Amino acid sequence: MMTLRPDLAINLVTLGPSIDFGSAAKLCAAYGIRHVGVTKEQVGAVGVAEAARILRGEGLSVTAYARLPAFPATRGGAWQTAIDEALGMIEAARSIGATGIIATGGRVGGDNKDLGRARLYFAEGLQALLQPVRQAGLQILLEPLHPMYAADRGLFFTLRQALEFCRSFRADIGVIVDAYHLWWDPNLADDIGRAAGLIRGYHVSDWRLPTRTLLTDRAMMGDGCIDLPRIRRLVQDAGYAGPHEVEIFSEHDWWKRPPVEILKTCIERFSTAC
Amino acid sequence: MMTLRPDLAINLVTLGPSIDFGSAAKLCAAYGIRHVGVTKEQVGAVGVAEAARILRGEGLSVTAYARLPAFPATRGGAWQTAIDEALGMIEAARSIGATGIIATGGRVGGDNKDLGRARLYFAEGLQALLQPVRQAGLQILLEPLHPMYAADRGLFFTLRQALEFCRSFRADIGVIVDAYHLWWDPNLADDIGRAAGLIRGYHVSDWRLPTRTLLTDRAMMGDGCIDLPRIRRLVQDAGYAGPHEVEIFSEHDWWKRPPVEILKTCIERFSTAC
Repeated sequence: MMTLRPDLAINLVTLGPSIDFGSAAKLCAAYGIRHVGVTKEQVGAVGVAEAARILRGEGLSVTAYARLPAFPATRGGAWQTAIDEALGMIEAARSIGATGIIATGGRVGGDNKDLGRARLYFAEGLQALLQPVRQAGLQILLEPLHPMYAADRGLFFTLRQALEFCRSFRADIGVIVDAYHLWWDPNLADDIGRAAGLIRGYHVSDWRLPTRTLLTDRAMMGDGCIDLPRIRRLVQDAGYAGPHEVEIFSEHDWWKRPPVEILKTCIERFSTAC
Repeated sequence: MMTLRPDLAINLVTLGPSIDFGSAAKLCAAYGIRHVGVTKEQVGAVGVAEAARILRGEGLSVTAYARLPAFPATRGGAWQTAIDEALGMIEAARSIGATGIIATGGRVGGDNKDLGRARLYFAEGLQALLQPVRQAGLQILLEPLHPMYAADRGLFFTLRQALEFCRSFRADIGVIVDAYHLWWDPNLADDIGRAAGLIRGYHVSDWRLPTRTLLTDRAMMGDGCIDLPRIRRLVQDAGYAGPHEVEIFSEHDWWKRPPVEILKTCIERFSTAC
């Protein structure tokens, strides 16, 4: 009989770009996985209705839907485009039964090199989405990213910075703790403690040495230099009891392997290296 | 007549690996540069005595010599090798007239995944070097590095973390503020203020978008997304009055160009983009 693994979630991006959404969902279900993380690109590839049907059919619940767009500086056409995209994501997240929708921030460059100002634009964007998010029964989940993504993806780089934003926002926003993004964070232990009650997701992968490219060179848990068992204990001691989600972008290594090998290795390493 | 540029320093690595030490020094001097940063690899390539002769001949002073080795966990052969290497560097730094010797930390991985413990080994290593450093008339300069170097190069990732280490160390250690490493730092403005009196170097380059590799893909000032004038003001407001040092590692772009073009662009951008 198949072992159910309610404590392990697989972000479907981990299985690589070669496998289609339906096959990825079926594979996860066949190995006892009950929770998956999905991106708007993955859902977009099959369409929201079909994605929802597949997930329901395989008995998979969605941890979180990634990720809200950046919000531009001025409330013109680009602002409305970002809002429209976000509203579409909220509707899609509701349709596929996600409980959270991930936000990481925006981008700097062009005529704004000020991260603080970018955070203000971001906060204004979230404000405009709070009501639709609530009506859809969702929660915004703020994910601090590694500082190497400061230019184009994230706006919060330490857990403390994300927590301060959540608390200043006067709305129920949760945080995602991703070991890959935060393992170096000077105050990680203290701040995971302070995040008690706000942690709505815990992501794992490992830091490869050497890391060849910034975006898609993460290692399998146990193959890098992150002390994952330590971070797991911190997160659990802070009261987080949800699934631990594997999220590996690995263009040069794992994504070249058969998805079933990737999944079996994730399951094995989840017990031996996390 | 040649314009002297006492406020600009060039780290010789900026001119790329194609130019030899003597030609790089001569080129800098010809453009009015008075201060250069050098690495042990560059000095090693010509020998300490010859490097010292070249620098003296061109009237160049050395800002800082990079960089002390990591210190291993146990006081066996590897520890002694690191100490011997460091003692050699201290002697070389004295010979070439450097005022500081850069330290960034150590490495994790292998059987130590604990950054805190790596910092203890590092502190023990520095302790063993304080007397020879003092006797050579040098100062140890702690440089916080970008967190993408947490696995193999740095141990201090925010300016606050570096300052706390300096203050706990009960010895005169300075810090280097490098805009490339710290531009994303959540508390940069506050902490540069707190670093008043401890800042012994300010390094500039820019963050390229996209950044293709972690080590050697820095941009020329003005071509990236760092608000360099803002950081310059912060550093100057904190009382730093030394030269501003350009340090660009650019395997795919600048290092493919003639060194004279690189240097002239550095000089121009130093006035227009810094």
